[in-house]
Amino acid sequence: MEIKTYKKDAEYSYTLGAFPTIELLKTRPSEVLEVYVHSTFTDTETIEKLTKPYGIPVYRQDKIINKLSDKENCFVVGILKKYKDVLDSDKSHIVLVNPSNMGNMGTIIRTAIGFGIKNLAIISPGVDVFHPKTIRASMGALFRINCQYFSSFEEYEAAYQKHEIFCFMLNAERQLTVNNCPKPELFSLVFGNEATGLDDSFLKKGTSIIIPQSEEVDSLNITIAAGVGMYMFTQR
Amino acid sequence: MEIKTYKKDAEYSYTLGAFPTIELLKTRPSEVLEVYVHSTFTDTETIEKLTKPYGIPVYRQDKIINKLSDKENCFVVGILKKYKDVLDSDKSHIVLVNPSNMGNMGTIIRTAIGFGIKNLAIISPGVDVFHPKTIRASMGALFRINCQYFSSFEEYEAAYQKHEIFCFMLNAERQLTVNNCPKPELFSLVFGNEATGLDDSFLKKGTSIIIPQSEEVDSLNITIAAGVGMYMFTQR
Repeated sequence: MEIKTYKKDAEYSYTLGAFPTIELLKTRPSEVLEVYVHSTFTDTETIEKLTKPYGIPVYRQDKIINKLSDKENCFVVGILKKYKDVLDSDKSHIVLVNPSNMGNMGTIIRTAIGFGIKNLAIISPGVDVFHPKTIRASMGALFRINCQYFSSFEEYEAAYQKHEIFCFMLNAERQLTVNNCPKPELFSLVFGNEATGLDDSFLKKGTSIIIPQSEEVDSLNITIAAGVGMYMFTQR
Repeated sequence: MEIKTYKKDAEYSYTLGAFPTIELLKTRPSEVLEVYVHSTFTDTETIEKLTKPYGIPVYRQDKIINKLSDKENCFVVGILKKYKDVLDSDKSHIVLVNPSNMGNMGTIIRTAIGFGIKNLAIISPGVDVFHPKTIRASMGALFRINCQYFSSFEEYEAAYQKHEIFCFMLNAERQLTVNNCPKPELFSLVFGNEATGLDDSFLKKGTSIIIPQSEEVDSLNITIAAGVGMYMFTQR
């Protein structure tokens, strides 16, 4: 198999680094096509324990690693088939509307897994969840989340009608404080694009909510807003 | 004045973009040496309103902007003298121990200002708070924070003895939940290096604290941990 640097329409993607590759092998072994290990990498035992039961080939080859990684401290690469998930209808969700930054999306995924939220809806257009940059920023947490794209928010809403919707917006009706965080059984936390946020049509979808913040900033970074929101909604 | 791309030992730094430059002019006008405006930039009125009262020269010159910025959507650059702050002894602080990522530091500064924390201690070695990357990630919030470097945590501690210290660590004694967040009058929230965290010596400094998180991630991203921590400690 000839591995090329990532393209959005490719059928495979890859993990860069030992940590996300190990996460991949632990959580989605049946999607892994092959693993490359650098000649200077010492802990091949861990990799072999995780690949052997599934017959995943492991190659010691520096060339392909150097080709795929722009960082010098990358010693393991895992090649995976892209897969499609369907969201759990009985679990709470994160919804990202038109996310435009792969690093932010990866950080939000890592945070979601950290707070036990395992379902992510992405409303198109949005950046590619399988891009190696997203995978890297997620530290491999991507493989632990169910991720599904929807062509519009309305399509998502129609598919998951039991979820109570909370839209994070600067002009929201309600402030999120320690004492008033809603505790619905099933929730969808909705966040907008990094530059433009959610447009006013979202004011009418469920409850609009803002994390209280000083007027000295134009807004919180989206990863921080999502982090605080997920922390608060998952505290019981 | 010949402006060169940023070096750590330079006596000046610069803002890249209209938003952080306007933040600079609003908050630290006496530190601004000059402003460059791209020939295609239209809102020069705002810049002139902010520069005129202080006699800050404004040059329409594309060359220097293209030289300093690696992004194409940068139309304004502000050149500033580096300055030194001293922390407020009667206000709460954020303390970053050996921060190694300028983007993360900028995001933490933006979040701190968003939650009303206006004092930042950095324990050396740590990345340069005046680097244009930090300024950009902070969206100019850097100019609203008092920032001071200390050669050791002990030096910081000795200087601000009234502050109650909270160290964010994975092996902490105490979990931070919605119901048990301490409410001291003066606090210092201490965060470690991105890769290594705080070493065990910090277990004995004040109260060690962890944001409850799943074992499915190795840790939260430092910007998220700092964001949740600052949100919780500033909620009254």
